[in-house]
Amino acid sequence: MNFLEERIIQEGIIKSPTTLLVETFLNDQIDIALMDKIGQEFYHRFKDCPITKVLTIETSGIPVAYPVARAFGVPLVIARQARTAKMGSDVYEVELDPSIHPRKDTVVVSKKHLSAADRVLIIDDLLANGGTLQCLISLVETADATIDGLGVAIEKGFQEGGHRIRNLGYHLESLAIIDSLNPITGEILFRIQ
Amino acid sequence: MNFLEERIIQEGIIKSPTTLLVETFLNDQIDIALMDKIGQEFYHRFKDCPITKVLTIETSGIPVAYPVARAFGVPLVIARQARTAKMGSDVYEVELDPSIHPRKDTVVVSKKHLSAADRVLIIDDLLANGGTLQCLISLVETADATIDGLGVAIEKGFQEGGHRIRNLGYHLESLAIIDSLNPITGEILFRIQ
Repeated sequence: MNFLEERIIQEGIIKSPTTLLVETFLNDQIDIALMDKIGQEFYHRFKDCPITKVLTIETSGIPVAYPVARAFGVPLVIARQARTAKMGSDVYEVELDPSIHPRKDTVVVSKKHLSAADRVLIIDDLLANGGTLQCLISLVETADATIDGLGVAIEKGFQEGGHRIRNLGYHLESLAIIDSLNPITGEILFRIQ
Repeated sequence: MNFLEERIIQEGIIKSPTTLLVETFLNDQIDIALMDKIGQEFYHRFKDCPITKVLTIETSGIPVAYPVARAFGVPLVIARQARTAKMGSDVYEVELDPSIHPRKDTVVVSKKHLSAADRVLIIDDLLANGGTLQCLISLVETADATIDGLGVAIEKGFQEGGHRIRNLGYHLESLAIIDSLNPITGEILFRIQ
């Protein structure tokens, strides 16, 4: 069991067979020492890639992606879930097909921050159905930049996202993959990686 | 001129007499080395306070507050602009009087993350009319926690927020206070502190 899986066991709260709360250390209240460890771990897993940008999406992706960008010594680019007034019109904007994805997923980033020369590592806190990560992938591809990999802190292995993204051929690393949550016994089953 | 003022001169874009874009290093694309310097600077200015939590608000506050929490070795608490599904109902929620503030300012944080024992340093990227900071102040006071200070990267000195918050008796530190922006000449006038 790795450091993140241990922390999930200690503090994660199972709300339902599909919902785990990690708000005391990963969302809402952030344990910076843990984030720094996550940053080092992703650096270790992707250090052979010539990363030029770390890309994440507001809000919960930011505290996970910050220490990754720090470890690589590259800028952190934050995609928004809607265009901001200051962004202007010169943006990459991607919206997933709402007939496939029940939740509307839109991501926007200014064209200034991604170019064809960029080698991108996409980081997020959580992977479930993969809609948000697929938007980020499309965004990077629209910019003609290269995706060297994707990293998430926690993958819900019982949902489709991880399977789908690996099937597309991307190098996806998840620090903890949860295969099942039992709200009655409190058991969390991690996939052995 | 300090390191942040220098960077603003180098890369800030004056869109109007009241609007400065800092999206290439402080918003949207984050220069992590600069953020680390900001974290060290706020640590230096507040190091005599027994801070237990750094509090900020999504989205743009997070990259500025992360290195501050890191420097103090305390958790970073992220207030939301709306209640999230996972938050439940056990929250502190503050809304500013819309008759005074044209933009609706709401901030929400789970009661788990702030208590009467906490000594709080509030951090944000930008201070203009002060509505958001006033919400964060009310939030901390609702929790009966103590506010040891407030820090912002950039204060628009030609708007009311800084004056208003200092008049309430709070210790507010701004790394750069802009007294005027001239979109014609490109001149940025900083207040000498």
